[in-house]
Formats: sequence, C-alpha cells, structure tokens
Amino acid sequence: MKKYEAVRAILGNKLYVPPKYASAKAYAPTNIALCKYWGKRNQELNLPMTSSLSISLGSKGATTELMVSTHAHDLVFLNNHPVDLTTSFGRRLIEFLDLFRAHGMPRFIVNIESNIPIAAGLASSACGFAALAIVLDQLFDWELPEYQLSILARLGSGSASRSIWQGFVEWHAGFRADGMDSFAEPISESWPELCIGLLIVSEKEKMISSRDAMQRTVTTSPLYSAWPSKVSRDLSLVKQAISVQDFSLLGRTAESNAMTMHATMLSAWPTISYMLPETLLAMQKIWQLRRDGLSLYFTQDAGPNLKLLFLKQDADIISQEFAGVDVLQPFLE
Amino acid sequence: MKKYEAVRAILGNKLYVPPKYASAKAYAPTNIALCKYWGKRNQELNLPMTSSLSISLGSKGATTELMVSTHAHDLVFLNNHPVDLTTSFGRRLIEFLDLFRAHGMPRFIVNIESNIPIAAGLASSACGFAALAIVLDQLFDWELPEYQLSILARLGSGSASRSIWQGFVEWHAGFRADGMDSFAEPISESWPELCIGLLIVSEKEKMISSRDAMQRTVTTSPLYSAWPSKVSRDLSLVKQAISVQDFSLLGRTAESNAMTMHATMLSAWPTISYMLPETLLAMQKIWQLRRDGLSLYFTQDAGPNLKLLFLKQDADIISQEFAGVDVLQPFLE
Repeated sequence: MKKYEAVRAILGNKLYVPPKYASAKAYAPTNIALCKYWGKRNQELNLPMTSSLSISLGSKGATTELMVSTHAHDLVFLNNHPVDLTTSFGRRLIEFLDLFRAHGMPRFIVNIESNIPIAAGLASSACGFAALAIVLDQLFDWELPEYQLSILARLGSGSASRSIWQGFVEWHAGFRADGMDSFAEPISESWPELCIGLLIVSEKEKMISSRDAMQRTVTTSPLYSAWPSKVSRDLSLVKQAISVQDFSLLGRTAESNAMTMHATMLSAWPTISYMLPETLLAMQKIWQLRRDGLSLYFTQDAGPNLKLLFLKQDADIISQEFAGVDVLQPFLE
Repeated sequence: MKKYEAVRAILGNKLYVPPKYASAKAYAPTNIALCKYWGKRNQELNLPMTSSLSISLGSKGATTELMVSTHAHDLVFLNNHPVDLTTSFGRRLIEFLDLFRAHGMPRFIVNIESNIPIAAGLASSACGFAALAIVLDQLFDWELPEYQLSILARLGSGSASRSIWQGFVEWHAGFRADGMDSFAEPISESWPELCIGLLIVSEKEKMISSRDAMQRTVTTSPLYSAWPSKVSRDLSLVKQAISVQDFSLLGRTAESNAMTMHATMLSAWPTISYMLPETLLAMQKIWQLRRDGLSLYFTQDAGPNLKLLFLKQDADIISQEFAGVDVLQPFLE
C-alpha cells in the first residue's frame, strides 16, 4: 500500500473538497520516547516493529500556520526563514502536503514556528508532522477523530503519531498491513512532579538521519532480533511505573531502553554512534550522581543530546550540576 | 566440578611428586581476540559460552620464574616490586598455585616480568596464567601436552587458554561439563604483513573487571541472547579471512565483533561502558580514515584502549596519524 492510498482510505471523498478556510494554525508538542520506536516493519507507511511510549513536552514544539496561496508553488518558512524546497526537509514536507491535494487543489504558504533545535535528536519532525496533520484537518474542516490524525501524522514521520497529544502517549504497533490499527492514544495518568531536563550537548546536524540509522540497524545488527522482546517488557514496566508513580522504575526502564537501542546501533555495520565525547562525560556524571544517591536518569534519541529524567524536588540540584540544562515540567506547561 | 578436581583429572599421581628442579622460567605472549570470549557457561571452570579466536602478540607478554622456596609463605614480585598477596591479583595467583600443591609441597618465589600495562584491557592475566601453567610444567617436569597446559591456564583465566601459543589461536568452547574439551589450538597459517597497533588511551585501572562485566552482561543484557550466533558467524568469517589472507574481511569482522560485544555491555544494567572520550575520538578518527580509503580497523577489549589492525604497507601513515601508537608485527617478533 502506498501513502496516498492510506490517506484516501481515511478521507474518502473529502479529498476532493477544497479548504473551508483561508488559513488555519495549530500547535503540536514534541515528544520524548521513554520506550523507543526503533525499526520499521513497513518503510513506506512508517509502520513500526514494536509499540512505543512517550511523554509530550508541553510548550516545546511547533506551531504551524497554513495559508491558502495563489502562487504556483508552495512557500515554506521556518522561524521566518524561507526553506529551500530542494533540501531533504523541504521535499519531505511538500510530499506530505501533496498527499492531501487532489488535482486542482491550491498551494500553501506554510509558516512553521519551532522552539526546539532542528535535527539534534529532539524529534523536530514529530511535532512538525503532527502540527501539519492537525492544521490540515482544521483548514479543510475534516473533523477527523484524533486517532486518524495520529495515522496521518505517522505517514509523515513515525514518532509524529504520538505528538497529537500532551502527556503520556502510547503508539500501538498494530498488525494490519494497511496500518489502520497503528496509531497512538493518550494515557490518562498525570504526573505533575515529573521533570525533563534538556541537556543540549551539540546543535550540529546529525551525521545520519534516524530514518537511515533505523533501517541500517534492522538490516545489519546481529542484536536487533532481541530488541522487540526488550521493548515489550519495558512497555509493561513503564506503564506500571506510571500507574503507581514509581519514579525509580520509570527512570531505570527508560534509561535501559535507550541504552539498549543505542547498543543495537553500535552493533550495526557500519557502526552507528550518536555519542559525542560530551555525551559520554554527561552520562558518566549522571551515573556518579546516581551512585551518590540522586534519583536521576536519562534517555537519548538519535542524536548526541540527553534528556534528564528527575522529580521536581531535585530540580535545583540538577540545574546546579548541569549548567544550561533546560528544565521542563511536561504536566504543568 | 571444582578447579582442583579438574587439575587432578589431568595430573593424577603427578600431583604428589615434588618439583624436579630448583627453579624454572617460561614466557607466554598476551593475546588479542579477533572474535571475542564474552560470557561463561561455568564460572568455576571458566568454560565459555562460545568459541573464540585470537592472535598472540609476539614479544609482548609475561616471563615468569618460579623458584622453590624455604619460606613459610609464597613471595611474588611483579617487575621487581613485591606484590601484596591480600589484593585480588595476589589472591588469584596464590589460589592458582595452590591448585598444584598437594599437602607438604613447597612454597615459591615468583618473579613475573611483564612488558604490558596491567589491568588496562591488554589481557595481562592471559599471558600471566599461561606463563604460570608452562613454568609449573617445567619445574615439576610433568611433560604435559600443550592442549592440557591450555586447560590448566584456562582455570586461572579463560583467555589464558589461548596464550600457550604464538600466532592465530582458536579456543574451542567445548560441550563437556568437566571442560576437558574446552582448550585452545594454534591455527597454522602465518600472516607476516599483519600489524597490530596498541593505542593506549589510558593506563588507569578499569572500573569493573572483565570477569564481573561478563557476568553482569550474561545475567542482565536483553541482547546477550543474540551474541552466540554472532560469534559463530564471525568465527567462520575470521577463519576464511585468514585462510585466503583477505585483510578487509578480517578487519571488518574483528571490528564488528568487538563493537557487538561492547553493545551487549551497553545494554546491561547497570550499563557497562569501557569507553573514555579519548576512545570515542580515536574510533571516529579511524572511521574517517577508512572513509578516506585507508584499510584500518580496530578491536577493543574490556578497557578503554584500542588495538589497531592494518597491514605493513600502511604502518608509516598510521604511526603519523596516531602519535605514540606501538606497532607490533606478531608474526615477525
């Protein structure tokens, strides 16, 4: 199945109805997986090998405005700078918009305001495609249920399926070949004391996209075969930790899950390592602080930066230990 | 089965015969595994989960002299410094000697001359226990076949089973519970152009012994289950590379095997990482040089140092690129 067939399966005849409004604007938060999405069973539809579970980052994300345009081409601005549509980022974005434009539909002016570093492993594509799915729904007045917005966002970027909501979100891997059961859902529990510290080690562009890294891992890592059952166990543990608010269990499981994901990359060929010397030093510092009694954990995505996990009561000491850390309280923002 | 039972099974009544000579001296080289030994099926007897394959390092190793002593206690010297026999190193050594001393047998003066850094992931225990097994055989005039010396050395340290020989050596995992089929054997092929570059990043003692790291990996890593079949494939590939002298296949397989071993550690809990920032920088430099066309690979053991693999023709450029690298030609020393 092709992406446009998945879109048609959801929108049907709505695909041929022009936009209801001249413009619309929507926000989606970025999200950080506590139990990672790593590996696809279908590359075209971004269908994952396993389920995954994330926390959305409140006010860190993307606000996207779509304006119906009379130009012959789309115009895209990211934080007020024009985006070159021949770049990989530009092409992915236009290809996504094209999925929703039958013959004769208008071009757009797209204004994206993002307050997170692009391509630094902070899931900029997650909030980007989620915001696009939401704003398209508003502009065309489709009134799709959220789970269908999650499916549409997934077609842009897998992890975008989880950025439709705030709070804890689980993306069900699903079984169907057409992906119609592969969408995310929010988990109702709230955890106001939970803090995320963004520890930016480098804002440089990554050497290899997470898309390519994932695929190379699936096809070359001799350890990947053991990953799905690890995720399955960790998903249960994270959900248990959330339901009884056991922070140590949450932190341990999230950190172990991230380290295991990076371990599958280290064993890929050629080796994939998103670690910089500064990443390693930060990890060693976290492990030492933990041995000293601090309840501090981390997770790491496809980039050199770390996301610290801790509780509000330790926020001051962590800000002192890690200069420049950006402390977020996802449930209070 | 206990260690002393394994020793008795090999030596029989010879165990009750006193030393034939007043002193003896033997040398054993250290070895570097191209296909790693990582994980035990029997902790007492150092029986491995998988077979492994190494190259011995010529003149890098340990020369051990045993002298029959009239003292009430053993005396041990390492590079002319007395060894505290209450340390872990001292106790392991005396416990090993005691395996071969029935009631009434004499104490020893043990002089160990080692020309490699101790506990820096350079297999100092491999050459140490191999030299001890050989020198005991000489002192008592047991005249054991080499495969039995390999078994005895294994009781001191698993990788010591491979340090009985120079050149390429394969340690067969074996199946028996008593370990009598778990010994190493030399591989006859020689490869004079093959070079090993010792890149010492740090001579600090390791944070966790390879013995403990191995055990923690086996018991906690969710990826360890995939390790034995990786080793099995890599063993075939390394042997194929040796037999047709395909250096790129040898290097690729050895590096991938080492990275996968470290990946299993990264996924253990608590995470085990022998990497220092300098290790990572050296790896990144190697990968860049390789992308630039240099046929350079590395392997890494339970420590932060790297062992570069390359051919003689590239020795000059590698000495220029890596200041302080110690270049060895295992087949010419």
